[in-house]
Amino acid sequence: MARDLNVALIGQAFMGKAHSNAWSQAPRFFDLPVNPVMHTVAARNADTLPAFADRFGWANWSTNARALAKNDEIHLVDVSTPNDSHRALSVAMLEAGKHVACEKPLAGTLDEAREMRDAARKAKSSKTFVWYNYRRCPAVALAYNLIRSGKIGEIYHVRASYLQGWGGPDTPLLWRFKKGAAGSGAHGDLNAHIIDLARFLTGDEVKEINGAICKTFVKERKRLDGPGKGKSTVDDSVQFLATFKKGATASFEATRLAGGHFNDNSIEINGTKGSIRWSLERLNELEYFDLSQDGRTRGWSNIMVTDAGDHPYAEAWWPEGHIIGYEHSFTNQVADICRVMGRRKPAIPLPDFEDAYQTQRVLEAALVAAKARETVKMSEVK
Amino acid sequence: MARDLNVALIGQAFMGKAHSNAWSQAPRFFDLPVNPVMHTVAARNADTLPAFADRFGWANWSTNARALAKNDEIHLVDVSTPNDSHRALSVAMLEAGKHVACEKPLAGTLDEAREMRDAARKAKSSKTFVWYNYRRCPAVALAYNLIRSGKIGEIYHVRASYLQGWGGPDTPLLWRFKKGAAGSGAHGDLNAHIIDLARFLTGDEVKEINGAICKTFVKERKRLDGPGKGKSTVDDSVQFLATFKKGATASFEATRLAGGHFNDNSIEINGTKGSIRWSLERLNELEYFDLSQDGRTRGWSNIMVTDAGDHPYAEAWWPEGHIIGYEHSFTNQVADICRVMGRRKPAIPLPDFEDAYQTQRVLEAALVAAKARETVKMSEVK
Amino acid sequence: MARDLNVALIGQAFMGKAHSNAWSQAPRFFDLPVNPVMHTVAARNADTLPAFADRFGWANWSTNARALAKNDEIHLVDVSTPNDSHRALSVAMLEAGKHVACEKPLAGTLDEAREMRDAARKAKSSKTFVWYNYRRCPAVALAYNLIRSGKIGEIYHVRASYLQGWGGPDTPLLWRFKKGAAGSGAHGDLNAHIIDLARFLTGDEVKEINGAICKTFVKERKRLDGPGKGKSTVDDSVQFLATFKKGATASFEATRLAGGHFNDNSIEINGTKGSIRWSLERLNELEYFDLSQDGRTRGWSNIMVTDAGDHPYAEAWWPEGHIIGYEHSFTNQVADICRVMGRRKPAIPLPDFEDAYQTQRVLEAALVAAKARETVKMSEVK
Amino acid sequence: MARDLNVALIGQAFMGKAHSNAWSQAPRFFDLPVNPVMHTVAARNADTLPAFADRFGWANWSTNARALAKNDEIHLVDVSTPNDSHRALSVAMLEAGKHVACEKPLAGTLDEAREMRDAARKAKSSKTFVWYNYRRCPAVALAYNLIRSGKIGEIYHVRASYLQGWGGPDTPLLWRFKKGAAGSGAHGDLNAHIIDLARFLTGDEVKEINGAICKTFVKERKRLDGPGKGKSTVDDSVQFLATFKKGATASFEATRLAGGHFNDNSIEINGTKGSIRWSLERLNELEYFDLSQDGRTRGWSNIMVTDAGDHPYAEAWWPEGHIIGYEHSFTNQVADICRVMGRRKPAIPLPDFEDAYQTQRVLEAALVAAKARETVKMSEVK
Repeated sequence: MARDLNVALIGQAFMGKAHSNAWSQAPRFFDLPVNPVMHTVAARNADTLPAFADRFGWANWSTNARALAKNDEIHLVDVSTPNDSHRALSVAMLEAGKHVACEKPLAGTLDEAREMRDAARKAKSSKTFVWYNYRRCPAVALAYNLIRSGKIGEIYHVRASYLQGWGGPDTPLLWRFKKGAAGSGAHGDLNAHIIDLARFLTGDEVKEINGAICKTFVKERKRLDGPGKGKSTVDDSVQFLATFKKGATASFEATRLAGGHFNDNSIEINGTKGSIRWSLERLNELEYFDLSQDGRTRGWSNIMVTDAGDHPYAEAWWPEGHIIGYEHSFTNQVADICRVMGRRKPAIPLPDFEDAYQTQRVLEAALVAAKARETVKMSEVK
Repeated sequence: MARDLNVALIGQAFMGKAHSNAWSQAPRFFDLPVNPVMHTVAARNADTLPAFADRFGWANWSTNARALAKNDEIHLVDVSTPNDSHRALSVAMLEAGKHVACEKPLAGTLDEAREMRDAARKAKSSKTFVWYNYRRCPAVALAYNLIRSGKIGEIYHVRASYLQGWGGPDTPLLWRFKKGAAGSGAHGDLNAHIIDLARFLTGDEVKEINGAICKTFVKERKRLDGPGKGKSTVDDSVQFLATFKKGATASFEATRLAGGHFNDNSIEINGTKGSIRWSLERLNELEYFDLSQDGRTRGWSNIMVTDAGDHPYAEAWWPEGHIIGYEHSFTNQVADICRVMGRRKPAIPLPDFEDAYQTQRVLEAALVAAKARETVKMSEVK
Repeated sequence: MARDLNVALIGQAFMGKAHSNAWSQAPRFFDLPVNPVMHTVAARNADTLPAFADRFGWANWSTNARALAKNDEIHLVDVSTPNDSHRALSVAMLEAGKHVACEKPLAGTLDEAREMRDAARKAKSSKTFVWYNYRRCPAVALAYNLIRSGKIGEIYHVRASYLQGWGGPDTPLLWRFKKGAAGSGAHGDLNAHIIDLARFLTGDEVKEINGAICKTFVKERKRLDGPGKGKSTVDDSVQFLATFKKGATASFEATRLAGGHFNDNSIEINGTKGSIRWSLERLNELEYFDLSQDGRTRGWSNIMVTDAGDHPYAEAWWPEGHIIGYEHSFTNQVADICRVMGRRKPAIPLPDFEDAYQTQRVLEAALVAAKARETVKMSEVK
Repeated sequence: MARDLNVALIGQAFMGKAHSNAWSQAPRFFDLPVNPVMHTVAARNADTLPAFADRFGWANWSTNARALAKNDEIHLVDVSTPNDSHRALSVAMLEAGKHVACEKPLAGTLDEAREMRDAARKAKSSKTFVWYNYRRCPAVALAYNLIRSGKIGEIYHVRASYLQGWGGPDTPLLWRFKKGAAGSGAHGDLNAHIIDLARFLTGDEVKEINGAICKTFVKERKRLDGPGKGKSTVDDSVQFLATFKKGATASFEATRLAGGHFNDNSIEINGTKGSIRWSLERLNELEYFDLSQDGRTRGWSNIMVTDAGDHPYAEAWWPEGHIIGYEHSFTNQVADICRVMGRRKPAIPLPDFEDAYQTQRVLEAALVAAKARETVKMSEVK
């Protein structure tokens, strides 16, 4: 019988809800070598916490997140708080011998991320995980497997964008527009995901950043806490170009000002043998172009990635063609975390702090490029 | 009755065929204030030229293109030769008082382009045109009209790419891979088009280039004229980021190594009031997202741009839903050239040498950025 | 505080899993006026039942489904067994004063369905529900609301098909191919759903069946329980034409032999003011064409039906653009059942036995048309 | 050198324009064994005819179509008049020894069509052709080749619809709504095309009609020639079900009341080995699902049917990805007519009067089924 993995969650907001659901659903749909037990949820707001715990099935609740470190019953701590608290919580839990699963991006700053990476290195008996959950959309996992098995060949281009449209001038001055709380705007929120996907799918690392634009279009927004307007101190969009070590060229774009796109995390990869493309808004579908196909019938193949026999994670869910949704990526991640905790292989590799630190370096390098590097003014070109 | 416009064409290759068709078809489908007469075709290869002239209905043929300048019957010369001869032919014709319609890009180099622009300025009684034909796909013309009428608002982002996939390592060393003949690779061939579209649709000019990658992945290719391999001296792909004067950020990409894309000239523009997107592979369709729509039914509207009552150029062609193809963009351009020659308004503005020179400057600036500007090495970011 | 609704489920197969998940998830994502309690699961196979109960959180399990009728703690019985047992179980539970939620189609035969309808009429204090869950895909619910608010106008055409592709000659003689157990093939399984959707969305009833084809292409299949082949005694496909009372014409098709379609339940409705179309394989999207739009920008609007402010059920789930999956339609149905049990309005109407009996009549009428009515032989037409 | 084929066209309306363009364009883009010469155009309206002849390059014009029979210079007569004159003109021309290319449907009535078929049989030295031009969209021709080479296997289902939306109640009483002139409404206009496509692609013949609905929703329309309303005497929509001789089941639908569809001629075919689907609104694309593909990457392949090396007709047009339009189907047909006249093989088979007569029989049989056969009233099914 599967041994228990006692889990504590910190956070009860959007990610708290998504993670709670995942811890609850995973053992219902997967056969796992360890049994995740929803032991305790911790968060600051005691007004809402008991109801949250009750609703999602956490056995206990606490407003003292730091105290989890001392609770010997807890095996793994899931850090789902805002970015600026990732470091302190994660390091404390690692030092207390807990396994840690931290929300992305790893930290609010590169310095914090490095500290976390170092703490993870030291904590030899602890495992670390980062919630780059989109790796575990079955179509992304299939893309990973196709690329690893040589179907794309050597990679020429990566084209990654994460487009949202909710950040127009009518949107008020939410915490997401304040650098103190959010660290950055679209960059850390969205580019983090597509940098992770690009690194994960290519199996390659960025060598250099060839240019970047970091832009705040809407400089002032209506205050939520009083009359008048206040300053937005984060980026609305960040675009950058990069070159990978093995030679692939890549473009990245994150924005909250692309009207018509809601959650459009898209990636396309072109190689010597074929191409793949994917979008989160139709997350069950992977498009694949095989350059070796017969010319008469060659085309983009729209693969419905829902076949239990052939596609990652599909065995846990519904019959072919019965699509899954956004939150299943988290549930699939819980399943893989439990596999790793039970010394089994995950369906596809999980990101740890070391891995997520590399993504954070790319985030940082893009900002350096946006700020420090000279542009070519059109006035120089007569 | 419409007065005659005697036209001479130089060139009998791919563009010679497309232009010949356009000169022939335009008066059949449009009511025009001047009547284009296919007077003479000039080209070097006398073996194939008479048959070409006969097939497309050119009344005369000649192997001496320069002599067209002295033929008083010719009113307009259509220069459809490789880029390296645009300057000499166009300037000679302008100096002889001819109107000139030149293939894109304006020239092989910026210096040549500037000379052509200057010659056009001097030739006050001559009109100049450049074959940036995709402006005249009805869906692009509709997008132009929508943007001009304020439907998109102030522009945040331009996302333009021209992806083709024919340039893999099995493709031999065609003239297109030799810098001498071709000037550049994907850059001049493909980026030229999308820079023109971005400038045309936004009505704005590039202020600066924020980064660029120019890359030759396939360095050697099988010779056509002998055994062994020879060097490719042009780019396979060029990506760059730019900022427009009014603040919009833009990304551009041209490549011949995007397997699965055949002629995928795509552009998307996001603004304060809405978005548009378009691809040449489905050129009859424009997608439009109106941010002011009722939230319940708001979505990307897929507009079939074929309605004679509502859509540019559609009155000349077939009933609604009966789509047109690639070559109609040239025919629509001939119609607009004839309108301008007859002192009428074109459906949408035509690019002249002055305009195309601005596009050439952006092409050049992107190369400067790719070559001269420092990148951020990942090794700098610990 | 919400009063408890004690629920018993009968069945532990595919539908048992989907319903269990829905009873478990609904109170986590919705604020409901009654609180569904997963009291007991009943099924025949005692080997697997305890683990099933444990996995999905049923407090008790029993191999005696009939005994649920006598358990005073049970308020509602969810009948998720094969079609041939719907009648006996549902009638028994209604006679015992339970509320009943029965899987679709209502019964294996029209006679049984009528008996169930009559039992429901008699059981005045009981409520009945039928699991036509696809009504509760948010995009379908939105379509219902648009049609009710007059956006489509008077209806001309309904085009409904439910295409699957798993039933080729290599598929063995599963119970689904045996009339005794399954009642029918694609017809009861798939046409039932689209008849319900067509009736629900139009708000109209079928007046007559204008023709039908019921076909078994694969007459023998490999036995599962021994060597050799056995007879398939159900239809592989049923197509029929119908006219609605208010005049709309309709086509229906169910098949398991449409290779490339996995779970493609699609419906399109055309009316005097507009059209809608939808497919279950992209269940988060509704396409809407508004004939009153400006001709310049008129097109099919692809609506991402995920906006909490504007779209049915979306408030319970994730932010805009974060799509949901197949099983959410069941969870949404549980939420509406709980609303009705708590004397609130469901988001959109729920089907009861009376309603599902009308769908069963259409199923039957189509078979009558397929079997009994004369066709026009081509040999009659010289 | 290619021998001349002197062609006379009868008609100067929509089809006159499409055919004139095709006769003119074919020899420019194809290398043909006979050279079509645009000898004479005949039509009734002498006011517009000379300009029409001039515009499209007809050497002569005449208001006496019948006189073409006596002109020994004419080899082939292209009958592009309304349906009610097809018989008289075609029979006269066949009796005069001309080859005849007649617009579809073959005739206004089945009796007329039979007479034409008989005349064609007698005129042994004449060839006949019918303008079922959509066979010659390259994607349809590719589908034909794929099916013939066994890629689809034995056929289970044909799903064909031709949906237009222009026929709402605001559309006035055009000649198309008068039975005398038009013969029928959507049925002869649109179902004719999809019956031809279904017969052509399957290589099979209809055995029986299993049901049909013929419906006039808009019974009165605003008169064009005076005040008030007049009766529409044709169908707005006709749907029918059919069974093919080899067993495939098929559904057909033609309507002018499907708002949002402009020229949506769509067909899907499912077989034992795969499926194909196609729509005229994206006529350059064929979708193909190969059931024998590897399950991991199996999906609908979207084939851009524009590759000169691999796809029918593509060698005549533009490079890969440069799409063609509606009128190219006619030009491709002229090319194949010239090939046949020059004793070469057409790219794919051409329909002659014998063939088109079979399509007319199916049109007729559907109407018989709609009028004469009993329906199943819902009131019969309790």
